[in-house]
Amino acid sequence: MPRYALRLEYDGTEFCGWQRQGDLPSVQKVLEEACAFLNHGEVPTATAAGRTDAGVHAEAAVADVVLAQDLPPHRIRDAINFRTLPHPVVVTAAARVADDWSARFDCIGRGYRYRILNRPSRPGMEPGKVWHVKRRLDAGAMHEAAQGLLGKHDFSAFRAASCQAKSALRTLDRLDVSRIGEEVVIVAEARSFLHHQVRNLVGTLVEVGDGRRPVTWPRTLLEGRDRTRAGMTAPPDGLVFRYAKYDPEPDWV
Amino acid sequence: MPRYALRLEYDGTEFCGWQRQGDLPSVQKVLEEACAFLNHGEVPTATAAGRTDAGVHAEAAVADVVLAQDLPPHRIRDAINFRTLPHPVVVTAAARVADDWSARFDCIGRGYRYRILNRPSRPGMEPGKVWHVKRRLDAGAMHEAAQGLLGKHDFSAFRAASCQAKSALRTLDRLDVSRIGEEVVIVAEARSFLHHQVRNLVGTLVEVGDGRRPVTWPRTLLEGRDRTRAGMTAPPDGLVFRYAKYDPEPDWV
Repeated sequence: MPRYALRLEYDGTEFCGWQRQGDLPSVQKVLEEACAFLNHGEVPTATAAGRTDAGVHAEAAVADVVLAQDLPPHRIRDAINFRTLPHPVVVTAAARVADDWSARFDCIGRGYRYRILNRPSRPGMEPGKVWHVKRRLDAGAMHEAAQGLLGKHDFSAFRAASCQAKSALRTLDRLDVSRIGEEVVIVAEARSFLHHQVRNLVGTLVEVGDGRRPVTWPRTLLEGRDRTRAGMTAPPDGLVFRYAKYDPEPDWV
Repeated sequence: MPRYALRLEYDGTEFCGWQRQGDLPSVQKVLEEACAFLNHGEVPTATAAGRTDAGVHAEAAVADVVLAQDLPPHRIRDAINFRTLPHPVVVTAAARVADDWSARFDCIGRGYRYRILNRPSRPGMEPGKVWHVKRRLDAGAMHEAAQGLLGKHDFSAFRAASCQAKSALRTLDRLDVSRIGEEVVIVAEARSFLHHQVRNLVGTLVEVGDGRRPVTWPRTLLEGRDRTRAGMTAPPDGLVFRYAKYDPEPDWV
């Protein structure tokens, strides 16, 4: 039976996260149930490149699924989208991939974006899509602090207690902080991330941005490898899974 | 009693529009009722620079209101925001203005943005914030057509049947169309607009963008002054009131 790669956009607000958790609404559940009619009515299993947490969104997440139906990818895309209604889970592109292709294990790069709305007033237009921080943040100081975390390190100081990865060794390729009007935007790229790594990095950088901690603090934390000393875990609202990279890329349609 | 200018951000999805319509949820109702406690419990009347329709959003709309309480503008801003909860109506800035200042009549420029999501798949992240058009649009052709509408004209061909303005004469200062990734974004600026003018312009330009009509068509329509011949009224979802301009600007805090 054919295997398909699916590129997904979703609003994580209403979900317990990507992963199925019993009867709770999850992105995986919505997607898999929408796929059943392409699979002789059997609910298939989809595997994602990134298992986002509750409230985390995706612009271009990638998952793979094996389906009984052999159809052109654009028809798979449109057929699934018709069935994910009314949920905010959409297939923006699909591709046929090899039987042994894996969205998770073949992924060579993952990108996240974190948006902080940095002004006195709460968000009017996009509640659930930004972290609202009232104290004025110095994005330049945050960026400088972030550069000290790039490269290959043991990121134990920034992993969740619940993180299941065997090793905390990760290579952080990009951690850029910039101000765009009223927003402070953080862009993170790595081959893979630990559980809560981006949100813990953001929560720590914010303490530099509002002046409570020096620019050198995040690097000191990194070297200390002690999660209990780092900043808070930033809320999920501001986080978006931006992309999963492959080499070669599937033939997206 | 002091008069305040309020800069407003709101998500229009849940509202019947800016203007009060009996007991229907309106932006004006939410704002005015939130102001009552600053006005000895009396619900005041707020006047806006632009009376947006149902489903239309605002990034920086402006309204004025007279309140019994004489407080620094940032306290007015924060106090109102506490009372607009849980509605998506937020005061992003406030200012003291002269007794005869009017958000509506002193406004010297209004700006709108219209977002079209132009791809096969429906919006996953921002339902209600974009118009979804599946047919591929030629933003370059739309922009070219739009330039033929700039300047001072009788815009009868693009006004709503319900429009109450005495004259259809308006000066369109800017109508730019550009593609930003999967979106086609239209930016419109004028001293003032007729009812539905932006949405009728967008609906007409889309017929040029998808190749159904030539680039010269919108100009021909303009000159014909006949509303029944123009394109459809684009849905409210994609429309955002971006700003109202004043000279001088209020001392926003």
